[in-house]
Amino acid sequence: MFKRVLIANRGEIAVRIFRACRELDIEPVVVYSEADREALHVQLAEQAFCIGPARSADSYLNLDAILTVAKATGCDAIHPGYGFLSENDTFADACAQEGITFIGPSGDVIRAMGNKAAARKLMQQAGVPVVPGSDGAVDTAEQAKALADSIGYPVLIKASAGGGGRGMRRVFDPEQLIPLFEEARSESEACFGSGEMYLEKLILNPRHIEFQIMADRHGNVIQLGDRDCSIQRRNQKLLEESPSKALTPELREQMGAAAVAAAKAAHYENAGTIEFVLDPEGHFYFIEMNTRIQVEHPVTELVTGMDLVREQIRVAAGLPLSRTQEEVQLHGHAIECRINAEDPARNFQPCPGKVEFVHLPGGCGVRVDTCLYNGYELPPYYDSLMAKVIVHAPTRLEAIRRMRRALEELIIEGPATNADLLHQILHHPDFVRGNYNTGFLEANMQTLLAWSNSGEAREA
Amino acid sequence: MFKRVLIANRGEIAVRIFRACRELDIEPVVVYSEADREALHVQLAEQAFCIGPARSADSYLNLDAILTVAKATGCDAIHPGYGFLSENDTFADACAQEGITFIGPSGDVIRAMGNKAAARKLMQQAGVPVVPGSDGAVDTAEQAKALADSIGYPVLIKASAGGGGRGMRRVFDPEQLIPLFEEARSESEACFGSGEMYLEKLILNPRHIEFQIMADRHGNVIQLGDRDCSIQRRNQKLLEESPSKALTPELREQMGAAAVAAAKAAHYENAGTIEFVLDPEGHFYFIEMNTRIQVEHPVTELVTGMDLVREQIRVAAGLPLSRTQEEVQLHGHAIECRINAEDPARNFQPCPGKVEFVHLPGGCGVRVDTCLYNGYELPPYYDSLMAKVIVHAPTRLEAIRRMRRALEELIIEGPATNADLLHQILHHPDFVRGNYNTGFLEANMQTLLAWSNSGEAREA
Repeated sequence: MFKRVLIANRGEIAVRIFRACRELDIEPVVVYSEADREALHVQLAEQAFCIGPARSADSYLNLDAILTVAKATGCDAIHPGYGFLSENDTFADACAQEGITFIGPSGDVIRAMGNKAAARKLMQQAGVPVVPGSDGAVDTAEQAKALADSIGYPVLIKASAGGGGRGMRRVFDPEQLIPLFEEARSESEACFGSGEMYLEKLILNPRHIEFQIMADRHGNVIQLGDRDCSIQRRNQKLLEESPSKALTPELREQMGAAAVAAAKAAHYENAGTIEFVLDPEGHFYFIEMNTRIQVEHPVTELVTGMDLVREQIRVAAGLPLSRTQEEVQLHGHAIECRINAEDPARNFQPCPGKVEFVHLPGGCGVRVDTCLYNGYELPPYYDSLMAKVIVHAPTRLEAIRRMRRALEELIIEGPATNADLLHQILHHPDFVRGNYNTGFLEANMQTLLAWSNSGEAREA
Repeated sequence: MFKRVLIANRGEIAVRIFRACRELDIEPVVVYSEADREALHVQLAEQAFCIGPARSADSYLNLDAILTVAKATGCDAIHPGYGFLSENDTFADACAQEGITFIGPSGDVIRAMGNKAAARKLMQQAGVPVVPGSDGAVDTAEQAKALADSIGYPVLIKASAGGGGRGMRRVFDPEQLIPLFEEARSESEACFGSGEMYLEKLILNPRHIEFQIMADRHGNVIQLGDRDCSIQRRNQKLLEESPSKALTPELREQMGAAAVAAAKAAHYENAGTIEFVLDPEGHFYFIEMNTRIQVEHPVTELVTGMDLVREQIRVAAGLPLSRTQEEVQLHGHAIECRINAEDPARNFQPCPGKVEFVHLPGGCGVRVDTCLYNGYELPPYYDSLMAKVIVHAPTRLEAIRRMRRALEELIIEGPATNADLLHQILHHPDFVRGNYNTGFLEANMQTLLAWSNSGEAREA
């Protein structure tokens, strides 16, 4: 087992990894930016090193500074957390070159899964469903029309070089395909200097369902059940639950098997997530693989009883998985709410600042992962996640009720938070019935804000 | 299900019951003494009523005041928590007379189990082992000698009217029995005006093992595994764990069956605990039944995944148990540490006062039940329990490591606490090996305090 591990992250995930290290009797070494001198992970640590100014590029993304600290302190391994360097293949390679274990997959695997076209191809070869579409570019509007007719409408036309919605068109009417294709191509040529286009089926308001994967160096791959992460604001997850109410046992088994096949095809090692979209007819499609631990991993920990960060470290040290697939049993239901310093009424504008008073919920079935303490000043440079409140109960309805009461106990004075919005979501009839998709929040935002303003939580 | 439940308690258990009510969609009504105006359970509640001055006799033990609030607010039921009125048969009877459900067993059952001689007799009839001894009084020193010779030494001579150690003698040497008997009888006559004596086997430094029982109105009784509560200071439990390392699977099954037989013999209903002592040879003896929820119930909740307070409320409302004995499965290992406002170095002297700053541990496998918040002033009138830190992990060693790191994160500024002593216990080789009994703390107190003072946590 490792003797000393550097934690190349900040916020609640740095604290999370710190705890796993302590419990494994590993010495954690933490790093921090100048803006994070007072951060909880720094306060907890015996060995903490400043790696640069506040800006992430100058500190948490500074490969050299981090590797320098790792070498100087004699760390055997680096845990990258999520975000920052966690999916940076260059960093994974650099760690390997220095003889320091990167707690995650190899640089090659990160590269392979980071390239969307390559990942799609690999999944197709492995028999994992991908969103139907062109394999590579479509050259002409007529080819696009023929393809769209064969896969069915609506479809999405996308510029290969596109981004930010430019060079992209949604097509619902077959008549409109050719003109919209030409329009998108002109736009892409104008914006990006490239007319290379591709086309895929447009999955309208799907559910976002992902499977947690854990794989060791010895070829063992297990899946640890699904998470439903369809409650999103602008592609940012706000609330996650496991298991999803959208999956039948058969579908769960199929998707789980596909996730394992995907990880095996990628020769994957360590913790990873296979993300799918699920359409209302129950068809699921691979969208991407996240080659790191995710923010929402605790819901899986609660339903499986496994400590995923501990498992990551063990696997990275060469140990075999601590459980076989048969030994993985899912118990009850878990929900996570992300408490962000942001104002939902002002388009989720971030609200950093001093936390004058904090009181966190506790008790039966409640877990909190946070970087907060009384008097902590949230720096404005990083993402707005302050705390994750996670609950576990025997049934989904009990978990919903438990989360409601947990959020009712939560007090954060100082920055605006999204806690009240989350509390309203937990009372929305469609959420309570499990009848929601990635369009839920946008569709219901006005209602939810009105409930918030009127001060009444509507009972479903 | 009940519409409104009065919580006749304070501190962390009032918060615990409050949470269970909220999660069941029951309106909690709380009461408080004049000293508890700022208490967390009062802050959380929408309906809170002052029932008298600080002194427990004038408030939390004031049956009339509590019943008056219950009737005035239309409560269907009263949850007594632990301590205070929880084992008061008169109060249980009074609730019944008012048509208010007492969440616990009937007054008759409380009386039956509260009388030591009657409970002992009932257990013998049910085939539950009791500490060998005289059934009732022994009249002469010679009868005592004959009985002691037959049950074996050491024995304990006790005055029926005794208390505070007076009229009590431990006898290790058969030669000493008759003189010590006469001495104890004289003392009892002098102190209590009664020479009625009885005798029982002295179990030296046993382990304190208890079984959690849950029983419904329909005759169903289940046991929810054991708790080892042998880490005690002057008969006050400090740390509890489940399952006990002292029990083999066979012994656990035997004791569990005895616990169920005991509860059935008592026609028990609701949550209860059967307490046993276990001698080093593996013989176990019933000592008493606690007819209420216990402080240490969360360790059982973590290993069973059941919410015991929720279950108490459900069965009190007439619902059947939510699980059969076969459905009760124990997973992993749980440990609870009681964080008290007391100074272990000064003979555990209570240290009430203002909590200037509090930071509670969290994360994977950590639960905290507490009445603390930043700035809370602990009143001097009640017991010193401030918080319960409870951890759960797949194995005992992982649970120990998790508890160590949880206590390392805990910060309470203001009152002295026993947190450091607990942290030292978690490093003591005998504790780590599971090789301890009720004499552990007394035997090791000097060592543990010395470790504390030297600031080093010894690694086992």
